[in-house]
This record gives sequence, structure tokens and C-alpha cells, in this order.
Amino acid sequence: MAIQDQILNEIKKFKTIIIHRHKRPDPDAIGSQMGLAQLIKGSFPDKTVLCAGKQYESFAWLGTTDEITDEQYKDALVIVVDTANQPRVDDERYTTGKELIKIDHHPNDDQFGDIMWVEPESSSTSELIYDFFDANKDQLTLPAEGARLLYAGIVGDTGRFMYPSTSPHTLEVASKLATYDFSTSEVNKIEDEIDIPLARLSAYVYENLNILDSGAAYLVLSNKVLEPFKLGDESTSAVVPLPGKIKQVVSWAIFVEQKDGSFRIRLRSKGPEINELAKQYGGGGHPLASGAVVEDEDHIKDFVKDLNDLVAKNK
Amino acid sequence: MAIQDQILNEIKKFKTIIIHRHKRPDPDAIGSQMGLAQLIKGSFPDKTVLCAGKQYESFAWLGTTDEITDEQYKDALVIVVDTANQPRVDDERYTTGKELIKIDHHPNDDQFGDIMWVEPESSSTSELIYDFFDANKDQLTLPAEGARLLYAGIVGDTGRFMYPSTSPHTLEVASKLATYDFSTSEVNKIEDEIDIPLARLSAYVYENLNILDSGAAYLVLSNKVLEPFKLGDESTSAVVPLPGKIKQVVSWAIFVEQKDGSFRIRLRSKGPEINELAKQYGGGGHPLASGAVVEDEDHIKDFVKDLNDLVAKNK
Repeated sequence: MAIQDQILNEIKKFKTIIIHRHKRPDPDAIGSQMGLAQLIKGSFPDKTVLCAGKQYESFAWLGTTDEITDEQYKDALVIVVDTANQPRVDDERYTTGKELIKIDHHPNDDQFGDIMWVEPESSSTSELIYDFFDANKDQLTLPAEGARLLYAGIVGDTGRFMYPSTSPHTLEVASKLATYDFSTSEVNKIEDEIDIPLARLSAYVYENLNILDSGAAYLVLSNKVLEPFKLGDESTSAVVPLPGKIKQVVSWAIFVEQKDGSFRIRLRSKGPEINELAKQYGGGGHPLASGAVVEDEDHIKDFVKDLNDLVAKNK
Repeated sequence: MAIQDQILNEIKKFKTIIIHRHKRPDPDAIGSQMGLAQLIKGSFPDKTVLCAGKQYESFAWLGTTDEITDEQYKDALVIVVDTANQPRVDDERYTTGKELIKIDHHPNDDQFGDIMWVEPESSSTSELIYDFFDANKDQLTLPAEGARLLYAGIVGDTGRFMYPSTSPHTLEVASKLATYDFSTSEVNKIEDEIDIPLARLSAYVYENLNILDSGAAYLVLSNKVLEPFKLGDESTSAVVPLPGKIKQVVSWAIFVEQKDGSFRIRLRSKGPEINELAKQYGGGGHPLASGAVVEDEDHIKDFVKDLNDLVAKNK
């Protein structure tokens, strides 16, 4: 039996279905969670469908999570979406249901659940939820609100159809979702928006980024620099992609000072592989997105020199 | 006979086809021009297909225009793409061919050509060229390079599938184009890139934008401010959308000083209609995108006050 049919069979069996996603969620985590909930509610109005996890004000436009009692888990089917590793599941009661299904598009390093449906080639878990609907169209009903949520998830995880994970199928799914009664441009607008402090920090990045002749670039965000922006370390992740928008920049490092005076390095590249360099400094990661830590400003100089040499050599 | 069939019939009749687009081109103008040229060459290898207009270094990644003699126009079919008004056609010899076809997606205010195919509902002229291919698939061959050019045009005119003009059909066309052998993410990357001076000017905008409590925002770009960026008045248009990315900003004005000391106003809005205000200052435009001119800094103050009142009233 196709995996989608197996999942549908399990959904049919249970009266209560509880859907979990990962901590510190992004639009795909929430879009696939809430979108799947809409799909099940729309198809089986008698079932109780609940969404677990912390509610974030900034994601209120994608729906709200539910208060769930321990009792409700007892006879429930639990579905965990978009979460590769068990420690990242938001609300650890996900193991206390009667049955567990994992649906995800990240590499399947941590295998868990009675049924697993993992497609690392898919742009997003929201795309997979649409595929699940599409495979069982004759038995399922997707409300417009569900289509909006899945569209939001795809836009979030693909950088609005920018990243290489965007396949022809991704665009086809987006095209079908866009036929439902919601405003795609409103979703696009919300996901494109930034708030005032982040706008000011973006300005700082574009103004102070050091761009070397090789195409290597770097910026130091010390605590003194960051303080006036009133932004957490989390928010600095939002400006990490910005140097890559500049044509002349090939590979770049952003040094973010930590409370203990060390600097977390966020390293990115458009071409030259930078994960070996990250490893030399005790870090690691993917060829085009890595991280490491250096103790102090002196080591920043060394790191920048090494990055410059690496980029110059790859020219 | 369907208009696409009429156009195909004309193409078949002529040995030489010359394609024009508008002055100061954007990716859709060039993408639809070069994409149509690829489509005709791919389908009818014996025909001479030429692309007219000024060549821009920054658009070399979308192909190069041709040197065309007056003689070549004599027996040629001329197709003008993406150009609403005749004065905007690049290279005025477009009238000197044997026959003239207009293909466009702008409102058809200036009707010209022996055959006109104008679809204002379409996201882009590149989308229309794909539709033309699709309607005659049995007789036409689209090379991968043509698919890349049309994809680039659609991405350009939709802000990468962001603007409301992006229909389900637009995404479907993008999905089909993406199945051809080219890198969509490479196209997306190039269209998303900015150069160093524009990055620095973006920083200036985000740092110095005045955001009022109403959600009205404004910025004055005086010649003194602009001088160090070494950017023309043209380049300032690239930063006009930036304030709209800030969540709190509802409507905004950017005042760009002209050589005579007056200020060109670029006025944008996410909701409140601002074209009446533009009219009051001798300008005009669309409800969400207008322009006007004020003589001096004193008048800027008046304008900002009126904009603030307008936005506050619409809250």
C-alpha cells in the first residue's frame, strides 16, 4: 500500500488526532501543521484535531495552537511534521499517544514513529501535505484556509521559490494551491516584511560590511554594536543572508559576539566550499553554510585572512 | 482563427523576423524578446531572427541584440513585445518592416500594429510568449535557452511571484518552464543581486527613513546625500520599494533632489490610495504608486504633513 494510503487509513481509525511540529518554528513547520489540521477537519468534521506547541505572536497569522490535556493523548494518533530529530519536537508528550507518524522533508537521520514518510527531495513539508491530499483527492477536502497555510509553508522554506529545492513540482503545487480562495500576494507580503529594528540592523550590515578584492567579505557584530538595536542573537540570523545579495560578494563571515566575549562565526558561500575552513576552527556544517567559534578579535583576523586566501584561490 | 494561430501564420510567411522591445528594458522586455527569438529559431532554423535595441552590459546574461541594416527591414515581419506606447519602442525603424505585430500585457492605450495581441491580465509578456508556444506546441520547439529567458522575464515582472499579477496560471507556466534544462535558482540569484553602491544606498534608506506614528514614512535624498554613492537618478528607483518591506510602514514618499533644486516625489502605499494626494501636488499615477514634484524643502514639509494626515485618517 502506498505510504499516503497507510497514513490516511490511520487517520480514519482515530477519533482524536494531535499534530506536533518543531521548536522555534518557521512558516513551513506551522504551515504544514495547521494545514494538515485543516485538511483533516475539512475531510472528517467529526474528528477532534489538535495542534500542539508554543504559540508565537509573530505567527498568529498562521493560526493558533491548542490547549491539550494529557488525557487527550491517551487514545490519540500523533503526527509529527517537519521535525528531523526527536529532541526538537515541541511538547514532549508526542510519545504518549496510541500511535505515532512522522512526516518530514529533512534527511531521515533520527528515525522515529510507527509510520515514517520522509522525502528529502521535497522543498518543504507543506508540499508533502499537499501531495498527501492530492494522492487521496477523492476522499479528502482541502479548505481554502488549509491551502493558504500550505502555500505559506512552501513560500517560507523556498525563500519564495528562490532556493534550488524549488522543483517544477513545487511550482505546480503552488499553482494549484493558488486557485483556492485566499490572497497569495498577502501571504508573500507578510513573509517578506521585517520590523523596524531589523531594518536598522540590515542598514548596519550593508553600510559596514568589509568587502575584500577577492570577493570575501566579513562583518563583526560586537555586543556594543548590537546593543542599540535591542535584538537577540536569534534576530542576527535574519541578516546573515544579506551580504550574499551583493553581486561582488562570493563568501562571507559574520562574527557575532557572545556574552563571554567569544565570537560565533556564521559562514556562507555562493561557490567555494567553506566547511573545511569551519572545521579548522573547530566548527563545521554544509559546503555553503557553516559555523564556528573564535575566542577573540585576534583570531577574527586570522580567520578573515584564511577566508580571503580560500576565496582568492577559487577565483 | 485564434490570435496565436494568426501570429504563427505570419511568422511562417516571412524569411526575416525582427523583434523589438521598449527602451530602458527590464528582464521581461528582454526575456520576451530573446525568448521569442529562441522559440522561432528553434522551430524554424532557416529563418533569420534578429533582436533590435540598445545592448546593456548589465543584461548580457540575457543575450545580446543584433546589428540590423535598414535593408533587412524591407521584407521583414516586425514584432514589438512588452511595449505599450510607440514612443517607447527601442529603435524607431520598427515601422519600416513589411508587417507589424504587437504582443503586450500592458493596458492597450496606444493601439498599433497589423495584428495586436494584448492581455493586460497576464503577469508578463514572457508568460504570453509561453502561452503562444503552448497553443501551437505541435508545430513549435522551445529550446532550453528560450525557457530560461521566459522564466527570467516572468520572475522580473512578478518580483519573483510576489505581486498580485501572479496568477495560478503564471505559477503553472513557471513550473513547465522549470522542467527545461537550465538553473532556475541561478536566474533567481542574478535577479535578486544588487551591486555595492546600491547596497550602501539601501543602508542609507533603512537607517534614515523617518517613520511616523501613523505609518506614514519619508526620506529626502538630496544631491549632497546621493553624491558619494555615485548613482544616477535611475538607480534611486531601485530603493523605492524598500520602505514597504518594513511592517510598520503603510505609505511612504521618497524625495529625490533634481539638478534644479526641486524634488521628485516617489510615492507608494500598501493600502490608502495616494494618487489624489499626488494630483494635489501636480502629479498623478496609480492608487498605490504615484509621483509628483515639489519646488523646495518647505514644500516637502507640507507634503509630509498631508501624507501623514491621509494615512492617519485611513487607520
